[in-house]
Amino acid sequence: MHDNHDIDILISEVGPRDGLQSVKATMPTALKTAWISALAGAGLREIEIGSFVPAKLLPQMADAAQLVAHGRTLPGLFVTALVPNLKGAQAAFEAGVQKITVPVSVSEPHSLANIRKTHAQVIEEVRGVIALRNQHYPHVQVEAGLSTVFGCTIQGVVPADEVIRLALVMAGLGVDEVGLADTVGYANPTQVRQLFSRLRNELGTVAGSAHFHNTRGQGLANVVAALDVGVTTIDASQGGIGGCPYAPGASGNIVTEDLVYLLESMGLRTGIDIDRLVAAREWLQQGLPGEPLYGFIPDAGVGKNFHYAKDL
Amino acid sequence: MHDNHDIDILISEVGPRDGLQSVKATMPTALKTAWISALAGAGLREIEIGSFVPAKLLPQMADAAQLVAHGRTLPGLFVTALVPNLKGAQAAFEAGVQKITVPVSVSEPHSLANIRKTHAQVIEEVRGVIALRNQHYPHVQVEAGLSTVFGCTIQGVVPADEVIRLALVMAGLGVDEVGLADTVGYANPTQVRQLFSRLRNELGTVAGSAHFHNTRGQGLANVVAALDVGVTTIDASQGGIGGCPYAPGASGNIVTEDLVYLLESMGLRTGIDIDRLVAAREWLQQGLPGEPLYGFIPDAGVGKNFHYAKDL
Repeated sequence: MHDNHDIDILISEVGPRDGLQSVKATMPTALKTAWISALAGAGLREIEIGSFVPAKLLPQMADAAQLVAHGRTLPGLFVTALVPNLKGAQAAFEAGVQKITVPVSVSEPHSLANIRKTHAQVIEEVRGVIALRNQHYPHVQVEAGLSTVFGCTIQGVVPADEVIRLALVMAGLGVDEVGLADTVGYANPTQVRQLFSRLRNELGTVAGSAHFHNTRGQGLANVVAALDVGVTTIDASQGGIGGCPYAPGASGNIVTEDLVYLLESMGLRTGIDIDRLVAAREWLQQGLPGEPLYGFIPDAGVGKNFHYAKDL
Repeated sequence: MHDNHDIDILISEVGPRDGLQSVKATMPTALKTAWISALAGAGLREIEIGSFVPAKLLPQMADAAQLVAHGRTLPGLFVTALVPNLKGAQAAFEAGVQKITVPVSVSEPHSLANIRKTHAQVIEEVRGVIALRNQHYPHVQVEAGLSTVFGCTIQGVVPADEVIRLALVMAGLGVDEVGLADTVGYANPTQVRQLFSRLRNELGTVAGSAHFHNTRGQGLANVVAALDVGVTTIDASQGGIGGCPYAPGASGNIVTEDLVYLLESMGLRTGIDIDRLVAAREWLQQGLPGEPLYGFIPDAGVGKNFHYAKDL
């Protein structure tokens, strides 16, 4: 389990997975490990280190097991990975992850288009993952990452009832956490408050993280809404890499640097040293030459009032 | 007075003033009028059309009187302008504005650096403006636009007590509205809630608009906080032009297009047709060739769920 009594909000860095799997280039393993070390050194407590998928599908993720091994050497870091199925879970468990996230699309047309699985098939896969975990890896956490929960480019509206129904199925299967992801950047703060409130009411402590994409520039606005209803784990990626970057010049994920600024300026402790976090971009720039990085804080700086909110 | 019973939030478009005064090029008057017409045609109810300052100081604003005259021909539009002093107010009144905003920096070092006036001098200037308005232009509204209220690059922290003290002085002088501006992009949602709550408690209906800069990417997050405490007028600029654009590639003001998306997706009516609003960028691009325009919605589109929040 996390030992996070000294922070208010856990930022889960998804750049090494959500970011690096979205770019064409493959970042060399040595630079990935240096980057992950720098992120952990800046105070990030949880990093989604990669995705356990066949290397021929996503060559950028081929070194996931090596990165897990490296991450496990870093003090205070909780090492997570994405797994699409039972085979991936087996590999992730063997590699030594502390948590896996299994993506589950609430939009069935999206699930079929993306991984060619119906809800029934995905549920069976998660059932298998939980059985494996329970039998051989009882200390590893399993999160169901519900995607397209705020709407879907294929299905359109995704009713809250469908989200909650699938969340309850996942909880019933024994996952430790159900997170909600705005896969296509449709979420608005009203909807965020309603859906996360309901998730918490229905699932209690199994209600999990918020994963917002910044496709329409609404990422941090949605974070404010999520904080209002008690969400305490928020995904972000350094430089905003990955996500669903539809708009040219626009980050896909919310930018970790800007999120840390938001939270810390509100007086919410993240445990992250923002200067060291910004410095960690160096590795990403070396590892992905020419790839644009986003974020306001790296350019604008934190200003003279940073940490002022605590004293208001 | 505004007749805005059919909308929930009034967006005050400041691009023609805050935006155009910040760029080096001067947009030709004919293109400015076409742009303003397009903005009004998209449903914007209030446009800050220019600044009444000496043309040798800001040649970009030399046509302010012409633009006011043009704006007054547009049905449903409330025409406002910025004025730095009594002389500017006189010119704005003569031109036929319906509202003026007098900027008042709560940070006295900022006021001295910017307009070489102490608080006492600024207060005397506003007193003169109000006397002139009361005597000859009783139907024109006067807003005090308090700047640097969330902190200042020169002074650093600007205590809330100082903001409220100056706001009360302005209300005592007879201004119709006191708005709060985050001049240097220091605001965070916690501070926004606290300061606007307090402003409303102290000033009642004289508590006015929120003007956020997006210098640190926190603009829309701060809007969510302002909405929470009852702010109903929010400044923005098309394409995010103007403001305090510290970061390369970063908008200075919050982007009107993205703000409309935020509000309407939350089910808050703005009266604005987002497609026509995006189309109005054409004039700005023609008028300021090569000037970067910002915003996510113009590129990403509104998606399939837009206006969904109303039915949640």
